[in-house]
Amino acid sequence: MKAVILLSGGLDSATTLAIAKKEGYACHALSFNYGQRHVAELNAAKKVARALNAATYKIIDLDLTWIGGSALTDTRIAVPEAPTRGIPVTYVPARNTIFLSYALGFAETLGAGDIFIGVNAVDYSGYPDCRPEYIKAFETMACLATRAGVEGNPFRIHTPLIHLSKAEIIKKGVELGVDYSLTVSCYQADAQGHACGRCDSCRFRKEGFTQAGIPDPVPYQK
Amino acid sequence: MKAVILLSGGLDSATTLAIAKKEGYACHALSFNYGQRHVAELNAAKKVARALNAATYKIIDLDLTWIGGSALTDTRIAVPEAPTRGIPVTYVPARNTIFLSYALGFAETLGAGDIFIGVNAVDYSGYPDCRPEYIKAFETMACLATRAGVEGNPFRIHTPLIHLSKAEIIKKGVELGVDYSLTVSCYQADAQGHACGRCDSCRFRKEGFTQAGIPDPVPYQK
Repeated sequence: MKAVILLSGGLDSATTLAIAKKEGYACHALSFNYGQRHVAELNAAKKVARALNAATYKIIDLDLTWIGGSALTDTRIAVPEAPTRGIPVTYVPARNTIFLSYALGFAETLGAGDIFIGVNAVDYSGYPDCRPEYIKAFETMACLATRAGVEGNPFRIHTPLIHLSKAEIIKKGVELGVDYSLTVSCYQADAQGHACGRCDSCRFRKEGFTQAGIPDPVPYQK
Repeated sequence: MKAVILLSGGLDSATTLAIAKKEGYACHALSFNYGQRHVAELNAAKKVARALNAATYKIIDLDLTWIGGSALTDTRIAVPEAPTRGIPVTYVPARNTIFLSYALGFAETLGAGDIFIGVNAVDYSGYPDCRPEYIKAFETMACLATRAGVEGNPFRIHTPLIHLSKAEIIKKGVELGVDYSLTVSCYQADAQGHACGRCDSCRFRKEGFTQAGIPDPVPYQK
């Protein structure tokens, strides 16, 4: 039983990979080199894929900097270091839709009906493409889009973390043997993977570890 | 009023661009260099964009050959030269979903709520991602996926050709001044854009011109 797993190199997707593996899937992990500011996450993803015995691991090159409109793909827009109102500027237009579309094509060719994505709608930045209603709509679309769907082999988009708090995600990952020292969550990690500790993603991570009562093993910048 | 237009360089997308222009949109055309066998279509798309005064024209490099599973992206799979049963091997897994996802991100950053795609569900190969129900599902998903959608600026996916016959499309294009000599429809056109005359796409095109009573201006291979 094969599944495609979107693996960013962060805490959530590493936990998602561990869950898919625990459920018995042969896990085909995909990462995207999309021009993101925090390219250190790709090294992390590779280590996580290896540590969790992914069946295959691929990094797909695609450029989203020409679309821009985000602090993650346009270096002229600063990453906020304090909470902001509404959807923050780290939102990347259509990013999860683009990633899931590639995963869909890959899954169809692979003969996999299952796609895992580590989106979370509890301790999150309010990105629209992390919400259950979005995922459900993508799944409906995916079944209509594909030969497999038309021929009666629908795709399921699995979001095992969507209703968990960050602390619950961390506890589950620890239980499944995820080595969080390999992961990079920070939006502006340096080349060595040192986290800033101030961006949204760092804040959610740090609060999650604190609430879980587990020390965060990643290095933070001084 | 801005719109994003998916422009392959074929007959249908050229007509779609002309229709969007006629409707008063500033047309931002996108083509994809995705590892397709018929890369000659990209030269055609560029000429069509120029001839129809697109506001901008971009070719996006993305690789679908690693996904494969199609005669258009895997040269080991031959392009059929006679009608086949069911969805033909020229179907590219998730292609329109990937293309529309990029168009969605681009439209959001551009501040465009309108995306045009020249899909057709009459004289077509039965590709699932050309059908009205697929397009409707993509549109629903797109509004949930994006900041713009959440903030009350939904996206509309326009498919002006979806219910037209190929002959009707051609007549409409001629009426709007489309120069079909610039277009390339063939799945296995040579580098100069000479069409094979035998693949699905050529057959639909030739029959369309015959039914419309208009000579097809593109060169066919001897």
